[in-house]
Amino acid sequence: MRSSAIRELLKLTEELEIISFAGGLPGPEVFPAKDFRSACMHVLEEHGPEALQYGTTEGFTPLRQMIARHAKRYGITAEPENILITCGSQQALDLIGKVFIDPGDEIVVERPTYLGALQAWNAYEANYHAVPMDADGIKMDELEQALAAGGKFVYVMPNFQNPTGVTLSLERRKKLVDLTSRYRVPLVEDDPYGQLRYEGKHLPPLFALNGLDVIYLSTFSKILSPGLRLGWIVAPSEIIRRLVQAKQGTDLHTSTLIQLVVYEVAHGGFLDRQVRSIRVVYRERRDAMVSAMKKYFPSGVTWTEPHGGLFLWVTLPESFDSAEVLREALKEKVAFVPGTSFYPDGSGANTMRLNFSYSKATIIEEGIRRLGKVLRAMMVQTKPVALPLGTQSKRSR
Amino acid sequence: MRSSAIRELLKLTEELEIISFAGGLPGPEVFPAKDFRSACMHVLEEHGPEALQYGTTEGFTPLRQMIARHAKRYGITAEPENILITCGSQQALDLIGKVFIDPGDEIVVERPTYLGALQAWNAYEANYHAVPMDADGIKMDELEQALAAGGKFVYVMPNFQNPTGVTLSLERRKKLVDLTSRYRVPLVEDDPYGQLRYEGKHLPPLFALNGLDVIYLSTFSKILSPGLRLGWIVAPSEIIRRLVQAKQGTDLHTSTLIQLVVYEVAHGGFLDRQVRSIRVVYRERRDAMVSAMKKYFPSGVTWTEPHGGLFLWVTLPESFDSAEVLREALKEKVAFVPGTSFYPDGSGANTMRLNFSYSKATIIEEGIRRLGKVLRAMMVQTKPVALPLGTQSKRSR
Repeated sequence: MRSSAIRELLKLTEELEIISFAGGLPGPEVFPAKDFRSACMHVLEEHGPEALQYGTTEGFTPLRQMIARHAKRYGITAEPENILITCGSQQALDLIGKVFIDPGDEIVVERPTYLGALQAWNAYEANYHAVPMDADGIKMDELEQALAAGGKFVYVMPNFQNPTGVTLSLERRKKLVDLTSRYRVPLVEDDPYGQLRYEGKHLPPLFALNGLDVIYLSTFSKILSPGLRLGWIVAPSEIIRRLVQAKQGTDLHTSTLIQLVVYEVAHGGFLDRQVRSIRVVYRERRDAMVSAMKKYFPSGVTWTEPHGGLFLWVTLPESFDSAEVLREALKEKVAFVPGTSFYPDGSGANTMRLNFSYSKATIIEEGIRRLGKVLRAMMVQTKPVALPLGTQSKRSR
Repeated sequence: MRSSAIRELLKLTEELEIISFAGGLPGPEVFPAKDFRSACMHVLEEHGPEALQYGTTEGFTPLRQMIARHAKRYGITAEPENILITCGSQQALDLIGKVFIDPGDEIVVERPTYLGALQAWNAYEANYHAVPMDADGIKMDELEQALAAGGKFVYVMPNFQNPTGVTLSLERRKKLVDLTSRYRVPLVEDDPYGQLRYEGKHLPPLFALNGLDVIYLSTFSKILSPGLRLGWIVAPSEIIRRLVQAKQGTDLHTSTLIQLVVYEVAHGGFLDRQVRSIRVVYRERRDAMVSAMKKYFPSGVTWTEPHGGLFLWVTLPESFDSAEVLREALKEKVAFVPGTSFYPDGSGANTMRLNFSYSKATIIEEGIRRLGKVLRAMMVQTKPVALPLGTQSKRSR
């Protein structure tokens, strides 16, 4: 196992004056701290002994019922017994690794893919078959080749993918579910951001497309608070049963106090109001980042403009090494995550992931200005050496 | 992996009127719910954005500093960088498995040993070398044989062991640390109950005896509340570094909110007052259980009388199968855990673990009365068939 580039970088953000686009942190302004305060009061006054006692591994039943009701609005139909409460989606990834991965298994992932999934599954000695993406998500022909080659399961993040911000098209969703069902390979659908859509129409989750063995993951981290460490898995009951057994040995169960408090905060319509207000804040921040990039980034640099989520993805000219860019950027007190972290084979040196949810719009503009300055300086330096002239005129969006 | 006998039994205790000696549950009367309420208020009012945000994998630094100060009183000298915060000791066991166990490794454990450790390590395909215990704990000659045979690490619970309630003597503690250091085998010291001593003198932890690579585990589950899921590991920094990497991939970090709230509750002397008051309650319950057993259990049945902790251990005549006893006991609405769960090889059919911390003294007496009735009835049934007459007169504590 290797140490997480993100976590190491998060430590940097503790230093004053660094503008960080590195972590996947929600903006602290959206945390409903007051609502948590009232909920803690109520839970500890009315249900103290229950909130402080051991609970069942599956999770607090009223919370699972609430998740079932809430998920239905986004196209997921499930009974509480199809739901397992986890310590964030990271634990869901770990449990999936524990149950499904034998050393040497090939896991089919997007290219690039979520770093946390690689970290979780490296511990189980997984190999990866990374399938290229385009603007509509993972490519179907290459995916089928990976399935034919014997992938153990497929892992995708269909909405506003981490790290690229790309959303899988409806057509490909249908095709993907058909393919994995045909090859009888489980499909892990990771959906931490699905509700954080700033434009366009909600697309049905893969789970709703009637495939075999679709395992759906989501979390309260981005719609309430990541400091809770509270997520959930929806899956067929046979798979839930195996995941519950794995979780018993892993940590017995997720904090009862946290589960009761989140139920208290979130039931009765609060989540919908909260999601609506987060969308307004993050949409503004995404727009601020994109505008600033148009203003400050040199030509030859391209980026995605995601319809939701927390991240956008920058592609530098081929000759660039974003680890080198990061070293220069830190001198200007701005941080991001070099793209190589998201490629199982360590490629993608000319890519970077930027987070737009954490900082206020004015800070984002200043950070992008600094980053633009670094990129322009490096562009000048590297231009005569390695950059083919043609690539510099291809400024896009 | 097999489903946990304890967790399945815990479900039974939800049924009304069942008196359960099965779970390892603290008595709900000792939970400081009011203190948690004030702490939640304070944390969310003064530190809301920090409490709800992502944190570092190692854990909240002031909490680790507090643990270092508190642990010093019990003989553990450590810097905060030697401490990793976990989701209860169960997660500590899982992380140790993840970092140290390769499939087929022999782990040296006590016989019987803690069920949760077996559950955690079965997932990593461990084998076990189970070393017999007597009234002074794990036996040294057999332990040395196990080390010579190539054990990967040694796992012991030196204080009021779960399940037996037995405490490792001072002489054997020294010998144990000498042996594992000599064989250069890591030693995992699990100490959830060390502070809950009802009589006799505190013995130094193995960690304090200057061995190589001693990994010390403890938890807030039994001194504050298990519903928090908050524990910690103390170890040399090279081992902590590897465990931190494993935890990153497992769940990123333990709930920030829980860590800040526990720090707020526990700093400033609260833990010592709380531990003192828990000792009074549990000592009374242990005494109630032992008195009732003397009154109601038939001769031929023996048990331990632990100086602390949560459990005592009952040995029935050889011919008994405690799974059968449990079936009869449930008809009388009383539950316990059959001893076989604590033997890696599934032996120990004539043993049972009883918890005395959860129920009030009057309930304990009634539960033991019911269990005594069941045992007497079965004694009469089995006597003519299988019991050698000699064993029946050997009534001991």
